Amino acid sequence: MNLQNELKKRADAFNKYWLKYLQEGKPATLYNAARHIPLGGGKKLRPFLVMLSCESVFGDAEKTLPFGAALEIMHNFTLVHDDIMDKSNLRRNLPTAHIKFGEPAAILAGDFLFARSFEVMHDLSVGCEIYKELNFDLIQCILDICEGQQLDIDFEKRKIVTEEEYIDMITRKTAALFRLSAKGGAIIGGGSKDEINGLTDYGRYLGLSFQIWDDYLDISSSEETLGKDIGNDIRNGKKTLIAVYSLQNATDENKKVFDEVFGNSNASDDDVKRVFTLFKKMGSIEYAKKTAIEYNKKAKKALTVLKDSEAKEILKELADYSIKREK
Amino acid sequence: MNLQNELKKRADAFNKYWLKYLQEGKPATLYNAARHIPLGGGKKLRPFLVMLSCESVFGDAEKTLPFGAALEIMHNFTLVHDDIMDKSNLRRNLPTAHIKFGEPAAILAGDFLFARSFEVMHDLSVGCEIYKELNFDLIQCILDICEGQQLDIDFEKRKIVTEEEYIDMITRKTAALFRLSAKGGAIIGGGSKDEINGLTDYGRYLGLSFQIWDDYLDISSSEETLGKDIGNDIRNGKKTLIAVYSLQNATDENKKVFDEVFGNSNASDDDVKRVFTLFKKMGSIEYAKKTAIEYNKKAKKALTVLKDSEAKEILKELADYSIKREK
Repeated sequence: MNLQNELKKRADAFNKYWLKYLQEGKPATLYNAARHIPLGGGKKLRPFLVMLSCESVFGDAEKTLPFGAALEIMHNFTLVHDDIMDKSNLRRNLPTAHIKFGEPAAILAGDFLFARSFEVMHDLSVGCEIYKELNFDLIQCILDICEGQQLDIDFEKRKIVTEEEYIDMITRKTAALFRLSAKGGAIIGGGSKDEINGLTDYGRYLGLSFQIWDDYLDISSSEETLGKDIGNDIRNGKKTLIAVYSLQNATDENKKVFDEVFGNSNASDDDVKRVFTLFKKMGSIEYAKKTAIEYNKKAKKALTVLKDSEAKEILKELADYSIKREK
Repeated sequence: MNLQNELKKRADAFNKYWLKYLQEGKPATLYNAARHIPLGGGKKLRPFLVMLSCESVFGDAEKTLPFGAALEIMHNFTLVHDDIMDKSNLRRNLPTAHIKFGEPAAILAGDFLFARSFEVMHDLSVGCEIYKELNFDLIQCILDICEGQQLDIDFEKRKIVTEEEYIDMITRKTAALFRLSAKGGAIIGGGSKDEINGLTDYGRYLGLSFQIWDDYLDISSSEETLGKDIGNDIRNGKKTLIAVYSLQNATDENKKVFDEVFGNSNASDDDVKRVFTLFKKMGSIEYAKKTAIEYNKKAKKALTVLKDSEAKEILKELADYSIKREK
């Protein structure tokens, strides 16, 4: 079984479906700003997860398309607004929405996508009570994402963040939507309570492993170049698991280095390199990698409740992909 | 019957109810930023409208509280985001959310209120299908508001906007939420199809009359002082009904004046005064007043479908208030 082929098959059905909700319209600025990032690409992991989760309980994946589209549109809304908050210039190799269309249009485009996401939910062919349950879950998920994003911002200003706090933050900011993808797919597919719970856990662990691997990739891929982004993360005091681990386990001497450089917007390139060298010396980068792999194992273990199926195998592969991918 | 007393009675029940959804929480920055504008006051016209509309079809107003709260929270979300887009510093005599908490927290607070609004809807004690209908209406309303806000921004850059375009813009930006308030109250109250349609029209006309009166008040109240806001509106090229009427009915000579000053951020105070004098001379301010009164009459006429009741009388008074108020 080839994971990329399996995803490609599902991508075609999904892309055809969700484009209905990303048509041109008037006022053109609003519609173009709202379409810009969704049409710019992205892995579509959330809708894949919804489909595969549904298939793994022997449900009809086509029935999940509105839910997958709702979650993917919601994900894109968070990207548009996060990019404004983080002052990011690039996303998916394109100028971010606020850079291309201006900040007012980008704020509005995010709001528009937010509402659109709830609109797509009305296309679900499920009973009213199930619709209502999924709608409530989606609301809780967004409240979680807002809290997670605020925690991420708050953490930048704090000297010390515990690993528990970090995991709580990414559980909200990233894993909540993965969790809901897997849970929703299982509900729409008519899974048993045990299956729904197992897939919910799978989604959450997958999200955690995915986010930590992202942190790991960002820093390990820039080992040679020490790219601008890593420098910025260190200068902004961004609390990745690598930073959290380093700050918690530093000797007094190293603490002084971190204190000076971490969150110091004027830190020199040499300062950044010193911190990076410490990360390596302390084994923080390896620790993040190890942690991502642990969550990957937990994700796969959560699948044991499922009967054997092709979808179950693909879900396992998807979990492995999340800690093998190089971008 | 005293309108203010009638509203006060209903305000107490409403305020007690919606505070449940505006509690403190963590992360504190997010919750405080989200609470700031809702707790800062406001007329609560939308929940009043929901309650009165329900009462006017002899329904139980208490049943509408979650819907009124959802709409009032949604209204506050639009204020928080609009203030960022418009770079406004003051709202309800308080610093706006982005001035007090910074832009990232204010964007996030708006998103949070948006989700909260949908959350409150789950407290409605109505059948699932009615819940779903109201939820869909709320989504369409927000899509309308986003489009209306973008049109408002677009219009600033345009030389000419027709009266029809202006009415379409405020129908979306302002009247859509008034419309849904009245419609939703009638649905929750179990009104007949005719009653629901009548109240829906009432809400829309009330919203139009309310917004045009706002335009009228802004400019007539600053006749002596020519306050900063009016100067800014003229320098930004803001298309109120007064501006729209003036631009459409100007002689070639006056067109030149408008061309020079309208939307010119460097226009002098004298330029602004020249435009203001033209507004008066052309009867544009009176025209806006007259138009607001016409919509007021249409709003009251839409109520004729209702049986007589105290609530019906209060709704008439509320319509009159919208064109008598001085702030």
